Amino acid sequence: MTQTIRVVDKILGANDAVAAENRALFDRVKVFALDILGSPGSGKTSLVCRTAREAGLRMAVIEGDIATARDAEKVAETGVPVVQINTGGACHLDASMVKTALEGLDLTALDLLVIENVGNLVCPAEFELGEHAKMVVSSTTEGLDKPAKYPLAFQKSKCVVLNKIDLAQPTDFNLAEYRKEVAQVKGDLAVVEVSCRTGEGLEGWYEWLRRAVADLRGS
Amino acid sequence: MTQTIRVVDKILGANDAVAAENRALFDRVKVFALDILGSPGSGKTSLVCRTAREAGLRMAVIEGDIATARDAEKVAETGVPVVQINTGGACHLDASMVKTALEGLDLTALDLLVIENVGNLVCPAEFELGEHAKMVVSSTTEGLDKPAKYPLAFQKSKCVVLNKIDLAQPTDFNLAEYRKEVAQVKGDLAVVEVSCRTGEGLEGWYEWLRRAVADLRGS
Repeated sequence: MTQTIRVVDKILGANDAVAAENRALFDRVKVFALDILGSPGSGKTSLVCRTAREAGLRMAVIEGDIATARDAEKVAETGVPVVQINTGGACHLDASMVKTALEGLDLTALDLLVIENVGNLVCPAEFELGEHAKMVVSSTTEGLDKPAKYPLAFQKSKCVVLNKIDLAQPTDFNLAEYRKEVAQVKGDLAVVEVSCRTGEGLEGWYEWLRRAVADLRGS
Repeated sequence: MTQTIRVVDKILGANDAVAAENRALFDRVKVFALDILGSPGSGKTSLVCRTAREAGLRMAVIEGDIATARDAEKVAETGVPVVQINTGGACHLDASMVKTALEGLDLTALDLLVIENVGNLVCPAEFELGEHAKMVVSSTTEGLDKPAKYPLAFQKSKCVVLNKIDLAQPTDFNLAEYRKEVAQVKGDLAVVEVSCRTGEGLEGWYEWLRRAVADLRGS
């Protein structure tokens, strides 16, 4: 058991070193790097595509999936540069995968790099990629208890986008209760309620992003 | 890298040995053991509670979560025996956790042991617990592409319960397309469409379970 833990420590240490290289690059070119976490089907790719079309930011996308290029194909239709990483079974992206993907992107003309992690509310929270912020996309159809049951993803995040608020009524989802659940896990965590289907609330999300980009540039 | 793989092999080997012990116990007492996989919020616990109340089977439940006893509390309200495992961060149950939980359950008077795994479509697929079958609970709100994007969970399963069919219309979910997506990943995988909210389709699921229990007993 001791041996196992030692090796895992080594993996995390090596990952953090590459993450630091990635972050130094993002800082140098002043590109805000965002790591998006969320359950399978929470709406991460829908949010990325909406953001690419509507936020008015110059962005590129790295798509992380175990298999298929489906998400990258959807993102490519918006016209922004996109690189697909297939982890081949691995449950999360790591900093080396991101570093390799960066070879396919020109960062110099960007405001924002979005890294959509593998759909998984657990493991991606444990790995730094070099991002400036992690965030969670959750959805009303998943129920109220996800912050309490998957606390690390929320604690590591700077923003929660609660998607599918158009389905709050048919699922009896209580938005006020959800905000309390989030606050119990991390008191100052921003919650932005949106529907990627109807567009409701997305302007608030774009404002959060634009402020994050401006903060990085010190303006 | 070689060292890492070797250690992981050792972990999986040790896990399989304990899983074999668990399975031998389940076979001896003729209790059908089912490992339920699914995304966070797909409706695993709702299905377990409905099954406890309505399937007419003598069952017990092991609940796997990273944190909280919320799911076990919901299951306990149905009156069936339940043990909560908190993994404390780990992304899946393993056979040793199940073995320990079994100390709290009397298997002799049961037809069915349900093990609800951590909400995660990736890692739980890689670990045998001693179960007779794995299954996936997915939901219409997650979209059509989950079988293609998370293939191992579906390939390892003997049944897919597609939940939330009451939300198929508002989400434009195409049931025929979903069946094609499942068949592309595993041709003979049973798909049972249900709504744990309205009760629609659940009788088909209970029939699948009763047949599995009967098959184990050779009747």
